Amino acid sequence: MHAAVYTGERTFETTTRDRPAPEAGEVRIAVQFAGLCGTDLHIFHGHMDARVTTPAVIGHEMSGIVSAVGDGVGEWQVGDAVVVMPLLWDGTCPACRAGNEHICQNLDFVGIDTPGALQQEWVVPAHLLVRVPAGVPLTHAALVEPVAVAVHDVRRSELSAGDKAVVIGAGPIGVLIASVARELGAEIALIELDAARRGFAADLGLTTVDPRAVDAVAWVQEWTGGAGADVVFEVAGAAAAVLSATAYAKVRGTIVVVAIHPEPRPIDLQRVFWRELRLLGARVYQRTDFEEAVRLVAADAVPTDALISDIVPLDAVQRAFETLETGGALKLLVDVAGERS
Amino acid sequence: MHAAVYTGERTFETTTRDRPAPEAGEVRIAVQFAGLCGTDLHIFHGHMDARVTTPAVIGHEMSGIVSAVGDGVGEWQVGDAVVVMPLLWDGTCPACRAGNEHICQNLDFVGIDTPGALQQEWVVPAHLLVRVPAGVPLTHAALVEPVAVAVHDVRRSELSAGDKAVVIGAGPIGVLIASVARELGAEIALIELDAARRGFAADLGLTTVDPRAVDAVAWVQEWTGGAGADVVFEVAGAAAAVLSATAYAKVRGTIVVVAIHPEPRPIDLQRVFWRELRLLGARVYQRTDFEEAVRLVAADAVPTDALISDIVPLDAVQRAFETLETGGALKLLVDVAGERS
Repeated sequence: MHAAVYTGERTFETTTRDRPAPEAGEVRIAVQFAGLCGTDLHIFHGHMDARVTTPAVIGHEMSGIVSAVGDGVGEWQVGDAVVVMPLLWDGTCPACRAGNEHICQNLDFVGIDTPGALQQEWVVPAHLLVRVPAGVPLTHAALVEPVAVAVHDVRRSELSAGDKAVVIGAGPIGVLIASVARELGAEIALIELDAARRGFAADLGLTTVDPRAVDAVAWVQEWTGGAGADVVFEVAGAAAAVLSATAYAKVRGTIVVVAIHPEPRPIDLQRVFWRELRLLGARVYQRTDFEEAVRLVAADAVPTDALISDIVPLDAVQRAFETLETGGALKLLVDVAGERS
Repeated sequence: MHAAVYTGERTFETTTRDRPAPEAGEVRIAVQFAGLCGTDLHIFHGHMDARVTTPAVIGHEMSGIVSAVGDGVGEWQVGDAVVVMPLLWDGTCPACRAGNEHICQNLDFVGIDTPGALQQEWVVPAHLLVRVPAGVPLTHAALVEPVAVAVHDVRRSELSAGDKAVVIGAGPIGVLIASVARELGAEIALIELDAARRGFAADLGLTTVDPRAVDAVAWVQEWTGGAGADVVFEVAGAAAAVLSATAYAKVRGTIVVVAIHPEPRPIDLQRVFWRELRLLGARVYQRTDFEEAVRLVAADAVPTDALISDIVPLDAVQRAFETLETGGALKLLVDVAGERS
């Protein structure tokens, strides 16, 4: 079988490997499609070399079909369509004992800390599998993982139907958060600097604001009748976005930190104090989020087709990352099975 | 009657004024004791001149005795011992309509935005009064307002019995938060740079940590069995304290922003994201906090006597602020009645 292997220094190579056999409690999956995300791009750039052991098979957004089951696996059969929730927790740390296994203090993120989906046959523990209903295209199912991120972010925010939410940043996760929030019955405004991303979101029927063309704080004030937004999702990752987030929020409003901020960011704590704001970190997802994401993808309630800019073969992973780093695509899928030897 | 009047430029003068008469719905209070707090010190320093109209009678921590009641006030009688919850909301703004009147978008903070307690006879709306039970010394009752701040901060944090909380900063509010949290059944560690303040807190039986002598993050890790603190109260107001606050907190832990931060502060958002932390602003108090504060003061459950460094006459307000700005006192009370002419 073939695998795309990260060898360090901005380089992916396609290699041939022996097809692995599942041990007891494991399942082997014929990976069909794998999505490339911002974290994968960080790996490509070498920013996570301290965590990723090269040569590394990465990839954690995927869909596939069960191709073999190990001993003691009763729930899964060859031919089942599946996605993988790529979190392995130790079950013993204080976070796990408090019920927060998804952010275990020693979390093993499958596809980063251990081998991932950019290989044609992938062996994982059976309990990570989530079933994909019949009839759901496996291209769409490959987006379940990022949809689960959005579902988790929205659930953590406690957004309700009728609420108004600001999403800062209209990349794939921002658009998915906006879509999930809209599905919930909330009203959404996406704040985005890039005209192409604003255009993409507008084509999905989402309200967008160009903060260079209008005073976005005044716009949100007006939009919310002087109250401010119930929830603000910070998905841009920029220092200016963090500073503005507190200005959009209503008294006792919520700001959800979704983006990765590699260095400490200035926050207007006077505003946090004055309005008794709530700022929440939100990371990955819990099983309930993953299952809700499958439901939303199956119901076509999130714009999977629109988000998929292109589908490329396994031996084009190198070029795919080069496209992503120029901002030339939203979501790129790798047709992992298409290159099976 | 006499009043201490802020005339601007670090100056208080004692003046003689006519005794006011309460209008309908108002009560006149013979102020007994008034405490000076950090906000009052900001006013003395001129930092709030844009908000305070000079000449100004300030002061919002107090105790007193009803000396006259206006028409239609049935609940209060001359001779009643009272404290004042110094918040006037408009009742119509979005925050008020959502039930957050205490942080009304147009809040009138009595003693800052309108005249306060540093006068011998003070007229306020009757609905601001809270009854002081018989037998409670009025020196102690003058600390109800800062105790209510601490009660509000602890309630907002959702701290529970058996939890472990870190309090950064052992000034009067930090010590009161620690005391209220201890009364609730939580374990507390106070992190404080100043040796005298650590000594004061230690004399109250509170655990203190000198972050220059030990690695405070490692200390908290050890103290919490590797989990991190359930709640961190940031009461120091310093940039370094804010940066450290996220390092002390457990997975899904809470950080309460109590201190005033006049400029944006860098926050470790990577840690907020990674541990799904919750950062909450907490400002003033609600009626339930004020009533709980009266109960705690009456029960001697908070260290009122220990916090009162000195009691000075009304014509010594100028010197009292000069003492406070050198850090030479924790809580200074003004004996407002003692100077009555």
